[in-house]
Amino acid sequence: MDLIEKAAAGDTLAISRLLSEVENDTPLGQRALDALYPRAGRAIIIGVTGPSGSGKSTLVNRLALALASNPEGNALKVGVLAVDPSSPFSGGALLGDRVRMRDLGTLPNVFIRSMATRGALGGLARAAEGAAQVLDAVAFGIIIVETVGAGQAEVDIARMAHTTVVVEAPGLGDDIQAAKAGILEIADVLAVNKADKPGAEATARSLRVMLEIGTEMMGKEGADDAARWQIPLVMTCALDGAGVDELKNAIWSHQRWLNAHGGMEARNRARASDALERAAREHLFREWRQGLRDDVYRAVVDEVVAHRISPRKALERLLKT
Amino acid sequence: MDLIEKAAAGDTLAISRLLSEVENDTPLGQRALDALYPRAGRAIIIGVTGPSGSGKSTLVNRLALALASNPEGNALKVGVLAVDPSSPFSGGALLGDRVRMRDLGTLPNVFIRSMATRGALGGLARAAEGAAQVLDAVAFGIIIVETVGAGQAEVDIARMAHTTVVVEAPGLGDDIQAAKAGILEIADVLAVNKADKPGAEATARSLRVMLEIGTEMMGKEGADDAARWQIPLVMTCALDGAGVDELKNAIWSHQRWLNAHGGMEARNRARASDALERAAREHLFREWRQGLRDDVYRAVVDEVVAHRISPRKALERLLKT
Repeated sequence: MDLIEKAAAGDTLAISRLLSEVENDTPLGQRALDALYPRAGRAIIIGVTGPSGSGKSTLVNRLALALASNPEGNALKVGVLAVDPSSPFSGGALLGDRVRMRDLGTLPNVFIRSMATRGALGGLARAAEGAAQVLDAVAFGIIIVETVGAGQAEVDIARMAHTTVVVEAPGLGDDIQAAKAGILEIADVLAVNKADKPGAEATARSLRVMLEIGTEMMGKEGADDAARWQIPLVMTCALDGAGVDELKNAIWSHQRWLNAHGGMEARNRARASDALERAAREHLFREWRQGLRDDVYRAVVDEVVAHRISPRKALERLLKT
Repeated sequence: MDLIEKAAAGDTLAISRLLSEVENDTPLGQRALDALYPRAGRAIIIGVTGPSGSGKSTLVNRLALALASNPEGNALKVGVLAVDPSSPFSGGALLGDRVRMRDLGTLPNVFIRSMATRGALGGLARAAEGAAQVLDAVAFGIIIVETVGAGQAEVDIARMAHTTVVVEAPGLGDDIQAAKAGILEIADVLAVNKADKPGAEATARSLRVMLEIGTEMMGKEGADDAARWQIPLVMTCALDGAGVDELKNAIWSHQRWLNAHGGMEARNRARASDALERAAREHLFREWRQGLRDDVYRAVVDEVVAHRISPRKALERLLKT
């Protein structure tokens, strides 16, 4: 039985090895994605994002446990992809989440993977997308993709998720204000973690103001009130687990809303379209670059370095050769 | 006199308008970049990055002032590009840096620009690169590019900068540990801001441990000790300005080191090469997509959405048509 078949049969070690192949974009990884793709498409993908210090890793651990223990007895397998922000530099955190999260790894229904990302632009999104597809295909019912911050990678990952949870916390400084303005556009559910800390209520209050401003702005654009999802705000305390059930319920509410309003299909379409576009960009550039002689390419780069021609003019010249 | 000429003559309003054109990637913006490129290449580009809550915006303000006031009387024009993390979502912070930094805008030698980024992958890096080129061409001697966090965008911007300053601060929570592991690879200078706060010394200590581990690891790879840059760690307090002169000196030391060891040329080459590659990727995808009929493309996306074929197989099919 080969690696792909073993992984499909639920062998954890095989899944881990396959994820490495996919993350490293090896030929085997690519074959696996092609082979497994028809089996994928059933998992619910939940994105969890928030700034450093918001305690979101601990919250994700709690949430994974809560989601895996289904009261109806029909337990769901939950996969966690912890996308590591330091990885573009070092290939992985030295002392970060990787160690901290390991304690969860022994639970039968929760699988945790810290992801290292490659240097290439979009490498993070590609690797996370591929890893999610593998878990989806090997019968994980829920996949949580955890990311830090509010950068481009988070937008890409939010586009991939069916439900995106944005985590905030009190006491993270003024700069966070800047990030708040943008969260409305990716958040389906808001969580204020560290709810027992001073300032939690103030953080929640300012988020509610943001939500109101956002709703008013959208109202002016004439969208239909009844059809619009109302972003819920949940107070959580990941350390003792308070509010985690409410968070889970808010996620399920959003899932029901998506199903009722065609949102699932729209998000799946955006995701498929992104994946195709990413593959095309990579392929087209690689083909083009391989068709150019190294010395020709280098000579044109020299001209750009010397500021004799702009990058765009340099491209025009290369396209003519 | 047209906009490009006016900007080249130092007209602040014209520079602002030109930056908008470049950020929005309009035809005029593209023409301006081509026209101005031969005049650029003299500015020193300093990247400043660090997590939310590290107080780096205030520190950047102080640093810009310190760099603009040259004791030899020959004042340098300093441009600040504050890259806004929320912008991919909302097109700009509502209540963030944009307002806070405005008070500096009245100083004759400091020009501040908060940058909104577009949704496209790599949009942030492209826009920042373009804006830096404009400022460079219109005689800004120093350009500070300020970003949040440690994601892909920061890596791209670090590749563009000649000197990258990573700002940390005490009390930002455990998650920051993860980011610390990666900073060695982009930091040329480390600043621990909020040095007056409790825990600042502990933050500095753990950073020093990281630096030592990193140096040992690099040592094992057999690099030459004498030729290696020793990353300095500076304690700062942006609120009262303590340590800002030391930070400035550390940046100048790194500049001298770069000049002495060919690092300037290497960084300029990486930057030119990145810009060319980015332009090529954009162009190739656009051309390819325009050559495909919309209904053909949509039909293939449908197949991917239905999980009948993988994105990679879908691409193969489109490449054959």
